[in-house]
Amino acid sequence: MIDIEKANQEAVTKMMAARPICTGIGVAREVIPGMRDDLLLHAGPPISWEDASGPLRGAIVGALIFEKRAQSWEEAEQLVTSGQISFEPCHEHGAVGPMAGVISPSMKVYIVENETHGNVAYSNLNEGYGKVLRYGAYSEEVIDKLHWMNTTLADLVHQAIVAAGGLDIRALLAESLHMGDEGHNRNKAGSIVFTAKLAPHIAAAEGTNQDKAAVLQFLGENALSVLNPVMAACKAMADAGHDIEGSTIMTVMARNGTQLGIRVSGLGDRWFTGPVGQPDGLYFPGFTAADANGDIGDSTITETAGIGAFAMATAPAIVTFISGTPELALNTTMEMYEITAAEHTAFTIPALGFRGTPVGVDIRKVVELGIRPQINTGIAHKEPGIGQVGAGLVLPPMNVFEEALEAFVEKYFE
Amino acid sequence: MIDIEKANQEAVTKMMAARPICTGIGVAREVIPGMRDDLLLHAGPPISWEDASGPLRGAIVGALIFEKRAQSWEEAEQLVTSGQISFEPCHEHGAVGPMAGVISPSMKVYIVENETHGNVAYSNLNEGYGKVLRYGAYSEEVIDKLHWMNTTLADLVHQAIVAAGGLDIRALLAESLHMGDEGHNRNKAGSIVFTAKLAPHIAAAEGTNQDKAAVLQFLGENALSVLNPVMAACKAMADAGHDIEGSTIMTVMARNGTQLGIRVSGLGDRWFTGPVGQPDGLYFPGFTAADANGDIGDSTITETAGIGAFAMATAPAIVTFISGTPELALNTTMEMYEITAAEHTAFTIPALGFRGTPVGVDIRKVVELGIRPQINTGIAHKEPGIGQVGAGLVLPPMNVFEEALEAFVEKYFE
Repeated sequence: MIDIEKANQEAVTKMMAARPICTGIGVAREVIPGMRDDLLLHAGPPISWEDASGPLRGAIVGALIFEKRAQSWEEAEQLVTSGQISFEPCHEHGAVGPMAGVISPSMKVYIVENETHGNVAYSNLNEGYGKVLRYGAYSEEVIDKLHWMNTTLADLVHQAIVAAGGLDIRALLAESLHMGDEGHNRNKAGSIVFTAKLAPHIAAAEGTNQDKAAVLQFLGENALSVLNPVMAACKAMADAGHDIEGSTIMTVMARNGTQLGIRVSGLGDRWFTGPVGQPDGLYFPGFTAADANGDIGDSTITETAGIGAFAMATAPAIVTFISGTPELALNTTMEMYEITAAEHTAFTIPALGFRGTPVGVDIRKVVELGIRPQINTGIAHKEPGIGQVGAGLVLPPMNVFEEALEAFVEKYFE
Repeated sequence: MIDIEKANQEAVTKMMAARPICTGIGVAREVIPGMRDDLLLHAGPPISWEDASGPLRGAIVGALIFEKRAQSWEEAEQLVTSGQISFEPCHEHGAVGPMAGVISPSMKVYIVENETHGNVAYSNLNEGYGKVLRYGAYSEEVIDKLHWMNTTLADLVHQAIVAAGGLDIRALLAESLHMGDEGHNRNKAGSIVFTAKLAPHIAAAEGTNQDKAAVLQFLGENALSVLNPVMAACKAMADAGHDIEGSTIMTVMARNGTQLGIRVSGLGDRWFTGPVGQPDGLYFPGFTAADANGDIGDSTITETAGIGAFAMATAPAIVTFISGTPELALNTTMEMYEITAAEHTAFTIPALGFRGTPVGVDIRKVVELGIRPQINTGIAHKEPGIGQVGAGLVLPPMNVFEEALEAFVEKYFE
């Protein structure tokens, strides 16, 4: 007879014990397991070109232009529809990417090693705001910025991370949760902590003063600089709790802009998928809900690991960005305690008397209580090439939890 | 007939409208009005060597060693008791200094200009933790660090501030209050924002990579880096509300370790003084309340300007440092609304629905309600040379408000 409670405690205990250290930056082709020259990774569960939404298609086209495999939308589409280029989820390669989450073979990626259990996770570099690949933009300025990031930025940041002896991202997150970040949609404090920790090592690195100044300015002015290493750290933590026999803890939740998929610790690498929701939030000037793409990105790995919307009570200032009140932020966290298996031992919320964040979504509780994990997210324009149009809250479809629970019953009780 | 309400609104409106910009670093002798070669500035109201507490005496001795006017305690004491060196309060020269607050003629100081009203304020450079002059330490390592700060650090930081076109400290504070700082005893976020803003300009400045790395590391690892420019900014804001005919708003509150003194907007430059309190809080390992000096420092300029303990509701994580609960932090802010004249238009508290911080202590309300302004402070060892022993909360003596109110009645109604 399986002991689900015991299995779940083992899963969340391993997630919390994981110590994700960012050890440097490498080339995707060289460091990500199973990466190939004809492969693009993307956010969320598996998807075809035909089913892909605008921003994911735009990011795929942009990545092929970045790789110099195509010069236009048409050339890129031809490569993809002819099968010369294939797609697989980031999550199937130990990686995660925000929004479209496209990682191509030549792209540089952060390497985050879980020192406790030895597993490794990866994420691409954050591009900042405006026209960016992750929101499906693929114009010349987008590709030029990617090349600059892939050379100048990656080179200096890698040198700095190595010189620092690695960066403990769990410690950085614990600190930034005490500085009003929730770690998914608000990473202002974490990004400047990241910048300040790298700064002395960038100053001491090989390179020109001009490049160092440009990189430090880019990192310091981008309130999402740290999002990608944070996501890789969350992936490393969540993976530590995966594959525990008999556990009903969700270890992956990710969206490709069309479908949201989850994976469950005791159910191996099977995806349970359903249609993505439409985020509800604040739109940037000139945009409305009619412009919004469906929910997209691997960044829900943060909620999976017990931060993001789950930690909103510590980030009341986020409501200026997503709408709502500080009470909404508080209530969101309180509700997540209902469907989780533990309170985090490393991530605490000062305003709640230093209570640990809710961590480890138990799919049994989701189905039983009808409470779905809350997601705090950016909103992409549905057309490729435009970018972010707002930010808000969204829920996963209930069917993914129901189907996962049915599969669990089938596997363990029938 | 004077209109006190109107005068008070004018005072707080000017305090809130003040826009303090840090424009660079200069030599005290050259930039502080009335600074002389035979003068030392100190925190709090006027005091003699005989009445000075241990940490203030130690800082005076250290400053004279730093200035190469003395080589020992005895030589320094002789200079002081013979009248060759005199002391005056920082506040009487538009300056402020944390703890002992000693500023000597050769020391470099931050220059903060209130762009709205034209007044200027000054503060020395923050030394970080451990054995430091501001807590009365004066050993060789303390003096060596001061010399490094006065040359290498001041040079690079000045270049960076100028290259940045000045730093808007009010904007930096507004941002850090949304990141869990209260601006007096917790400046973790503000100090890394400060470091990250300076970093690209330090990287681009004239200097060696080694010096730049050392300065960036020093700034980034010192969670009080920004305290001194913040204090100068608060001084510039508070001074903007000073000298309003008929106003009962407190514009200075400062302690020299023996006496606490206040000044009131409508009562000119007269000090009202009383014995300092003993902070109640958490002690570092190995120390107890028996080691504590009386309350000391000009850093209460933060509370005077509407942050510090007045903004504690936005900084619940501070209770790990000063003891107490998040409720204490919340209640402290709520109580300060009772004795203040306005809610700050620039400094807001997300957790309170973005309510402005309480600003502008009205001495009438303090006396009428018996509620004194709360102070959030570091605690110095009573002997010179040891340093910080803890942090906590403390209150000013009630008599200073009573005597100021009597003087107000005398001036305006008799």
